[in-house]
Amino acid sequence: MTLIDGNAIAQEVLAEVKQRAAALAAGTGAGDGDAAGVVPHAVFVRVGDDPASVSYVAKKQRVAAECGMRSTLVLFPENVSRDELLARLDALNADPAVHGILVQAPLPRHLDETEVFNRISPAKDVDGFTSLNVGRLVQEQPGAFAPCTPAGIVELLRRSGVVTAGKRVVVVGRSLIVGKPAALLLLARGADATVTVCHSRTADLGAVTREADILVAAIGKPRLITADMVKEGAVVIDVGINRVPDPSRKSGHRLVGDVDFDAVAPKCSFITPVPGGVGPMTVAMLMRNTVAAAERAVGVFGA
Amino acid sequence: MTLIDGNAIAQEVLAEVKQRAAALAAGTGAGDGDAAGVVPHAVFVRVGDDPASVSYVAKKQRVAAECGMRSTLVLFPENVSRDELLARLDALNADPAVHGILVQAPLPRHLDETEVFNRISPAKDVDGFTSLNVGRLVQEQPGAFAPCTPAGIVELLRRSGVVTAGKRVVVVGRSLIVGKPAALLLLARGADATVTVCHSRTADLGAVTREADILVAAIGKPRLITADMVKEGAVVIDVGINRVPDPSRKSGHRLVGDVDFDAVAPKCSFITPVPGGVGPMTVAMLMRNTVAAAERAVGVFGA
Repeated sequence: MTLIDGNAIAQEVLAEVKQRAAALAAGTGAGDGDAAGVVPHAVFVRVGDDPASVSYVAKKQRVAAECGMRSTLVLFPENVSRDELLARLDALNADPAVHGILVQAPLPRHLDETEVFNRISPAKDVDGFTSLNVGRLVQEQPGAFAPCTPAGIVELLRRSGVVTAGKRVVVVGRSLIVGKPAALLLLARGADATVTVCHSRTADLGAVTREADILVAAIGKPRLITADMVKEGAVVIDVGINRVPDPSRKSGHRLVGDVDFDAVAPKCSFITPVPGGVGPMTVAMLMRNTVAAAERAVGVFGA
Repeated sequence: MTLIDGNAIAQEVLAEVKQRAAALAAGTGAGDGDAAGVVPHAVFVRVGDDPASVSYVAKKQRVAAECGMRSTLVLFPENVSRDELLARLDALNADPAVHGILVQAPLPRHLDETEVFNRISPAKDVDGFTSLNVGRLVQEQPGAFAPCTPAGIVELLRRSGVVTAGKRVVVVGRSLIVGKPAALLLLARGADATVTVCHSRTADLGAVTREADILVAAIGKPRLITADMVKEGAVVIDVGINRVPDPSRKSGHRLVGDVDFDAVAPKCSFITPVPGGVGPMTVAMLMRNTVAAAERAVGVFGA
């Protein structure tokens, strides 16, 4: 069994991002050869003070800085009006000094997430959540920004040497942010997997997951995937990040995935841990999307 | 074994479309209660004289007329320039008297189909091929125009009383026009199937198709699906329309599906024939999308 080290692979990705950001800053990465330096710039929009959102955004800003990128936090109170939020997004869309825009989910109930995410210019939609970018993903158009977690899963598999072509992939979970785009990326030409998507309405989930050469668990239920649901020798990617009580910890809790790691790991050829698996890749792919957005903005060839 | 009669079900759909078109024409379907009558109007754009395209577009115009809708054929020579074609689409997008626009595929090689289809206003994209509408389909947004063939498949199943929730659906083919959107529609909330997509790179296709409670064949290879690939009691939807030589016919050929009908049909609970299965549904769903586009244009509630 090989443990897939998400932290190490994320560092590889981030080292490449840092290099690309440095080339942009030096003006040497630009398509026309004589552009002034441009520092990639991401704007993170946070509404309210949800502790998880505060921590995620802070992490993203820290990693952006480590990559030599600029980031700005735009903070709105919990009760911000729809119009004010959308007007700010319009201004950010129009600002040539902004390359990537991310609105941190979840938003307060009075705001329509679909409407808000879709207000972001597709060229700056580094989270890949706009309808246009999702459609481009389905259509396998080059240059669509893929959502960061699914893109991170594909990158983890690729850099671990896991072949997906012709393999049975089973994705458990049909969310718009993970399950569906992960299935689409693994089905696309180049990845070429035979992909099955399961969800809460699937009859006999274990019978389906046991078919998987590569199992992607993205349900959000702690340790739902037990050893009997996994084929001997399977590759298991655990997207879940669930907080469970643990009196032995000072914090009183710990993070576990959607997979019963201790029982499942011995059966696997490869498995990702939680934490330290998919999580760091999500942030790394966000940085890669942001540097790509900046490259396109200044006309780097092939970006 | 029950034969699913696509012609009869298409007639049901078309009867409903005709009623909605008549309500629009009478002005009684309009949201504000006092709108003048509007006749739904589809524009079909054909480039060149490919015989299949000529025949498809003629058929669509005939059915539109039968539904009480207006249609216009815009015809370009094979060598039309990209700019001229796009300029015409822009004009049609801007014309309030046009509710639906369809560019008949395939286009000549010098034109980029993705670019051309994406030039159509999403509000008039009755084929459902624009990236924006595809993204909305993935995101299960109400009001996205679903591509006509996959929407027709879902409608055939629904009106035949086939339950999809919790069932194993296997879609063979990952095209942008049929395979992928069919998988997405059947996976969506409401349909709730457990969906697998196979394709040319799938290892042991038969092993996968035998898992299917509902098998959708959309490969474009005559009689690829043989009896040994189908589970006893399965529902089989055959999307293929393949021309094979037949010296016994005056034309010298006949149409067969992707399924070896004679051998497979006895094993099925339900099966669609070719012709007379999915084919008529594609046209019917196009008409339904067109009347819906017209209803939205005049502000009919819920359209």
